[in-house]
Amino acid sequence: MSDQKIVKTKYYADDEMTEQLAEVSVRETPAWEPDEKLKVVGTEVPRIDGYDKVSGTAHYTFDVNLPQMAHGRVLRCPHPHARIRSIDVSRARKMKGVLDIITHENTERITWRGDTSFLFDPHLRHEGDEVACAVAETTAIAERAARAIEVDYERLPFVTDPAEAMKEGAPKVHDYGNIVERRSQPYSRGDVEQGFAEADVVVEDDFSTRVVVHNPTEPHGSVASWDGDRLTVWDSTQAVYSVRDTLAEKLKIPASHVRVIKKYMGGGFGSKLSCGKHSVMAAIVARRIGRPVKITMDRKEMNLAMGNRPDSVQKLKIGAGRDGKLKAMRMYSHGSVGAYPYGAGCSWPFRTLYQCDNVSVEEYSVHGNTGPACAMRAPGHVPGTFALESLIDDLAEKLGLDPVKLRILNHTDKDQVSGLPYTSKRLIEAYRRGAEAIGWDGRNRTPGSGSGPVKTGLGMASQIWWGGGTPPCGCILKLNSDGSARVLAGTQDIGTGTSTFMAMIVAEVLGIPLEKISVTVGDTAAGPYCVLSGGSLTAPSVSPAVKEAAELMKAKLVSAGAAILELPEGDLTLTGGAVTSRSDGSKTVEVPAIFQQLREQTLVTTGARGANPEGWAINTFGAQFAEVEVDTETGRIRVKKVVAAHDVGLMLNRMTLENQMHGGIIQGVGYALCEQQVVDRNSGRVLNANLHGYKMPTMMDMPEIEVIVVSDADPKISNTGVKGCGEPAHIPTAGAIANAVYNAVGVRVTDLPMTPARVLEALARTSHSPSAAGPDTQ
Amino acid sequence: MSDQKIVKTKYYADDEMTEQLAEVSVRETPAWEPDEKLKVVGTEVPRIDGYDKVSGTAHYTFDVNLPQMAHGRVLRCPHPHARIRSIDVSRARKMKGVLDIITHENTERITWRGDTSFLFDPHLRHEGDEVACAVAETTAIAERAARAIEVDYERLPFVTDPAEAMKEGAPKVHDYGNIVERRSQPYSRGDVEQGFAEADVVVEDDFSTRVVVHNPTEPHGSVASWDGDRLTVWDSTQAVYSVRDTLAEKLKIPASHVRVIKKYMGGGFGSKLSCGKHSVMAAIVARRIGRPVKITMDRKEMNLAMGNRPDSVQKLKIGAGRDGKLKAMRMYSHGSVGAYPYGAGCSWPFRTLYQCDNVSVEEYSVHGNTGPACAMRAPGHVPGTFALESLIDDLAEKLGLDPVKLRILNHTDKDQVSGLPYTSKRLIEAYRRGAEAIGWDGRNRTPGSGSGPVKTGLGMASQIWWGGGTPPCGCILKLNSDGSARVLAGTQDIGTGTSTFMAMIVAEVLGIPLEKISVTVGDTAAGPYCVLSGGSLTAPSVSPAVKEAAELMKAKLVSAGAAILELPEGDLTLTGGAVTSRSDGSKTVEVPAIFQQLREQTLVTTGARGANPEGWAINTFGAQFAEVEVDTETGRIRVKKVVAAHDVGLMLNRMTLENQMHGGIIQGVGYALCEQQVVDRNSGRVLNANLHGYKMPTMMDMPEIEVIVVSDADPKISNTGVKGCGEPAHIPTAGAIANAVYNAVGVRVTDLPMTPARVLEALARTSHSPSAAGPDTQ
Repeated sequence: MSDQKIVKTKYYADDEMTEQLAEVSVRETPAWEPDEKLKVVGTEVPRIDGYDKVSGTAHYTFDVNLPQMAHGRVLRCPHPHARIRSIDVSRARKMKGVLDIITHENTERITWRGDTSFLFDPHLRHEGDEVACAVAETTAIAERAARAIEVDYERLPFVTDPAEAMKEGAPKVHDYGNIVERRSQPYSRGDVEQGFAEADVVVEDDFSTRVVVHNPTEPHGSVASWDGDRLTVWDSTQAVYSVRDTLAEKLKIPASHVRVIKKYMGGGFGSKLSCGKHSVMAAIVARRIGRPVKITMDRKEMNLAMGNRPDSVQKLKIGAGRDGKLKAMRMYSHGSVGAYPYGAGCSWPFRTLYQCDNVSVEEYSVHGNTGPACAMRAPGHVPGTFALESLIDDLAEKLGLDPVKLRILNHTDKDQVSGLPYTSKRLIEAYRRGAEAIGWDGRNRTPGSGSGPVKTGLGMASQIWWGGGTPPCGCILKLNSDGSARVLAGTQDIGTGTSTFMAMIVAEVLGIPLEKISVTVGDTAAGPYCVLSGGSLTAPSVSPAVKEAAELMKAKLVSAGAAILELPEGDLTLTGGAVTSRSDGSKTVEVPAIFQQLREQTLVTTGARGANPEGWAINTFGAQFAEVEVDTETGRIRVKKVVAAHDVGLMLNRMTLENQMHGGIIQGVGYALCEQQVVDRNSGRVLNANLHGYKMPTMMDMPEIEVIVVSDADPKISNTGVKGCGEPAHIPTAGAIANAVYNAVGVRVTDLPMTPARVLEALARTSHSPSAAGPDTQ
Repeated sequence: MSDQKIVKTKYYADDEMTEQLAEVSVRETPAWEPDEKLKVVGTEVPRIDGYDKVSGTAHYTFDVNLPQMAHGRVLRCPHPHARIRSIDVSRARKMKGVLDIITHENTERITWRGDTSFLFDPHLRHEGDEVACAVAETTAIAERAARAIEVDYERLPFVTDPAEAMKEGAPKVHDYGNIVERRSQPYSRGDVEQGFAEADVVVEDDFSTRVVVHNPTEPHGSVASWDGDRLTVWDSTQAVYSVRDTLAEKLKIPASHVRVIKKYMGGGFGSKLSCGKHSVMAAIVARRIGRPVKITMDRKEMNLAMGNRPDSVQKLKIGAGRDGKLKAMRMYSHGSVGAYPYGAGCSWPFRTLYQCDNVSVEEYSVHGNTGPACAMRAPGHVPGTFALESLIDDLAEKLGLDPVKLRILNHTDKDQVSGLPYTSKRLIEAYRRGAEAIGWDGRNRTPGSGSGPVKTGLGMASQIWWGGGTPPCGCILKLNSDGSARVLAGTQDIGTGTSTFMAMIVAEVLGIPLEKISVTVGDTAAGPYCVLSGGSLTAPSVSPAVKEAAELMKAKLVSAGAAILELPEGDLTLTGGAVTSRSDGSKTVEVPAIFQQLREQTLVTTGARGANPEGWAINTFGAQFAEVEVDTETGRIRVKKVVAAHDVGLMLNRMTLENQMHGGIIQGVGYALCEQQVVDRNSGRVLNANLHGYKMPTMMDMPEIEVIVVSDADPKISNTGVKGCGEPAHIPTAGAIANAVYNAVGVRVTDLPMTPARVLEALARTSHSPSAAGPDTQ
């Protein structure tokens, strides 16, 4: 029944991209082929939990209120770098309604982020680092109690800029120094010097991007409740199983004794991939006081301490022949990962998006006394693609080539790092259809040649991401005697529509109306283990498991139907809620009648995501085309239209896919034009840790968006042939906008975000010259 | 892998004992043999959720509080029989805080109890029948609103006594009359007249028992919450799946769209086997007002409308040869099932406990304008066994035989109704060991021969029940990489220790410490379908499924271990958390290492309860011996000791088994001595619908209890060889006490409860004569 094999798969875990070995069962469930005629999958289906959300009946983690529940607030360090000399909680403890206060002095030392720090670390490395947690009858009392804790801080010298931090003698964030060695490994292939020597044309430029923050609608938060020695945690998380395993490890209890539930969720974008300190604190205090405890984050805490995307300084150089073929590519970059280890590297697109034999990369992940970086929607690829695709456009101009044509010239069917062929790649079709939709032929042949102060331009950029999915991912399907079904998996729907596509797949395979299918996800006490929801893994990982369970259920029904109809199984099929003879439909038995005959109440099957094929690279590809208007008098950029043409394998649900594209693009508009966390170099404090000072785009800033899916099922990957689309949607947007701005005004803005001030500054320069990061104004 | 076959199984569903066909997979998992050396199973293990309950951290349905939750109260009919002429909710609706009021006028007509009535039926058939439901911001407002509803009742003639109700011209409770025809079918075998003609000795007597009420610690209650078109109901229920299916049917939504959760529960005893009206009302109103709704019952509602055990009038006649062999048995009985259809029959022990070829039974289930009867711990068997075992003792006395010897003389190895042999029956051993433990030889040879006003006596009674379990029952086992496990099933732990034995079985088979096993039950969104928790079905139905899943997991681990150790699977076993070579333990691989090698996070297996064997009767047996003290001056009976010797197949957990025995016996003491619902014949109203007037025994009334398990695994039944023990513990207690009272005072009390008044009345009679039901005093 199952064929065991060991295979290598890439997957995106916690805060890093990892290669892992996985032994999985490879079953013989049929794959959807590119020409498959599907009835439900690929159509437009509103989220099955959409009504709940818009009507307010959906209960989020914040809405979980348990009897006797207490409320916690975290006291955070006000300084960028300090050490606790002493901490006095006596006054706070005496306040009416205060139940407990935990600090490094009265709790076990629990290591955090590997062994680089602790749950409560007296060495505080950034503004917002956790000092203590006060728990009280109400949040307001807890807040007052936290403020009443008297801490004697020894203030330490600090550093916020990575360039400064890399210098000899800079204040050390960690004893080992400010470079995260494991995340600062050079890469090279071929002979880059020789390549540049052979190049006819060379372009180079420096680019910079800023720290941005995830800012999901729903902040982080947990409710912890103990039943004896068993812990239940409601958590706003992208990975119920990861949170379970971290809690079990940190609290030294069996994984089976931790139940993590996430029902509804208002976004994560990577900041909710791993277990938060507040979840562990809630569990610890709940055990101490014998009551459930809720700890939720406010917007300031979200901005200071719940993670962010690193900044980058990228120095790129590319050489090509007169024919446009790339000869050599060199990249230097550094970025601040903040106070704790993470990787700021952004060179992956540089290494692999285009055919080039000679590539070298030197990049550094650098600590600073700022908030910790973590994964954010396509880590590294977003800043990296902005810089790479800007310079590729510069090269096209220097060669006198159409930017799209230059990209097609350097197109490759093989992963440039591993040398493995792609299972599928429809990037050229994405170029063609995207160009057509945006009206590429109508762009300014000479950049900046439009008349008037408000100039229009077109630009584009490409994208590569993984998104092929990975085991382990299991699911359970229960079919009821009334023909309704429930599908369970240990995945979670973080707002992307996971539940909906799960129901759609069951509906497709079993011919059940969608209205009769329910989904249980986000509960470690229910569905089997699934990988985290990040890295665009979810749909390609979960969908094959669901399809397998549904196919096995179909086989079960056909088998039972065959016994009832006294026909060979091969002559029968499941269609319209009945097992029917294939040839003429003359003999038929309805599903409820099968249950009646079996005298069963539910039939159960399980499915598992098989391994990815060996010897192949699995990636998503895409191109986005942007039309912008630049007001050369005010420096204001307006993105008028974005065309997103992507190869994402089989499209499961047009509606949620388009939602993902819209979300990725609008987040890309924010990254390109306005979002940045501003740290005051003098005080080391964040100046805009709120939604007023931190400028996110609103619906008023939304361009018209056209989504084109250029792919269909890739049966080499899995039985569904799905690739992820969450991150791909976000990767090329800033690059496409930057190239469109250049096309509009003939001046390149190399620093994100392209605020009006930076645009005006660039326009003031007569020639196209590299610039360092601009001023911190917006 | 699975061998399908169709088999007949008996199981106890909703409100009736049913025979059903079930097709189930019969797998080759090894059965525990009687001589099996088990390490965990059979030991004394405290409930895994015991701490939660005693510490108050356990959250019951009453503790579920959702954001925006509203509260409902049911308005109930104050009359025993009435029809609603008109109902005016206008004043109630206008009250501040009132959200909605539903009645038969503004809701769909939903049939209830087959097609005999409706959710809101304008024809009200007993005090407490549902009239309307008021929903408001608080329970207090809802209560006031319910009272403010103006109902114009047309009062109808009523009847409360079944003997009256059976008479021509009695007020009709239903249009079809007062006899529940389907539950009033006569039974006979052999030639009873001929049997009595051949008998040397004949005894006969009339017995009566009263209506008693379940009164679980936790009242009934539900919280209903809609997410769009999906309904979640927290319910205090013995059958999450039955409640799910009833809600789906009544609300006309797919079963998959109903999730029923019961986490902790404070008892049911049969009153919570089916979906309550309040659950449907909560769901209807929650949908109407778009908010969650909680409706819970108070003690009065529990007593009036949540079910009760029928009363009985039993006229028994038994004839035997001089050798003690039974020649003929005849029984007439009737009992009131209250306002709605149910079965009051109590003849099953009479038909089958003893070897007798000539038996006839005539019994009637009779409607009255009283609260509805429903299943209560061993329906029918408790009153039936009291009467039968009293008369068997009379026969023994008349024959001059030891009551135990007479029973052994009439022992049978075959079910007397079906003729099928029992898979196992250790009743004679129960007699022997029970007699030894109570000191049977020391009983009064002449009843009532003790000196002084306080007389001591010994008595005993036997018991038969089904308790063999039945499919469908499924479970899922998830083993984590840290060696901890979680087992999921659609059963529910109603306070009996189901979760604990599930964990114990996994611990036994996989050699995992109990502290590393968690259990998910009572949630239709999680575990697969399981039969209801009633009829002593749970342990014998659920345990085989859990054992199968654990055995399959063990096989999986051994198989993986074999690959790692490069040894044949047959040479290996799983022991102490490692796969080890059987012969000398020289080669070994730990479970976490197996996961590491497999690169898996969880392994999943499923188990299902196979069918019962064909051609066999599966029953539990037991004998209880009671020592009592009767104060002949006050009429007060004190039960000093009860020895319970039972054949219940394999004992899973000595502690919870003893708990069940203790609970059953104390409930039996209440039934024998003090519990009765008192209805005023003049007003038709219940006089003691509260815990003050309804006398339940307390810890002060507890006898010393000795539990003897005379059985071990019965491998013919299932792979665990478990039989149920919940009902068997309760069946013979009243009979044993009645016989002990007779042994003490030499006067037979034939009417339960044996209140002091009845005892004094019986003592006042000089001879042992049949009596009708005594006065309603206690």
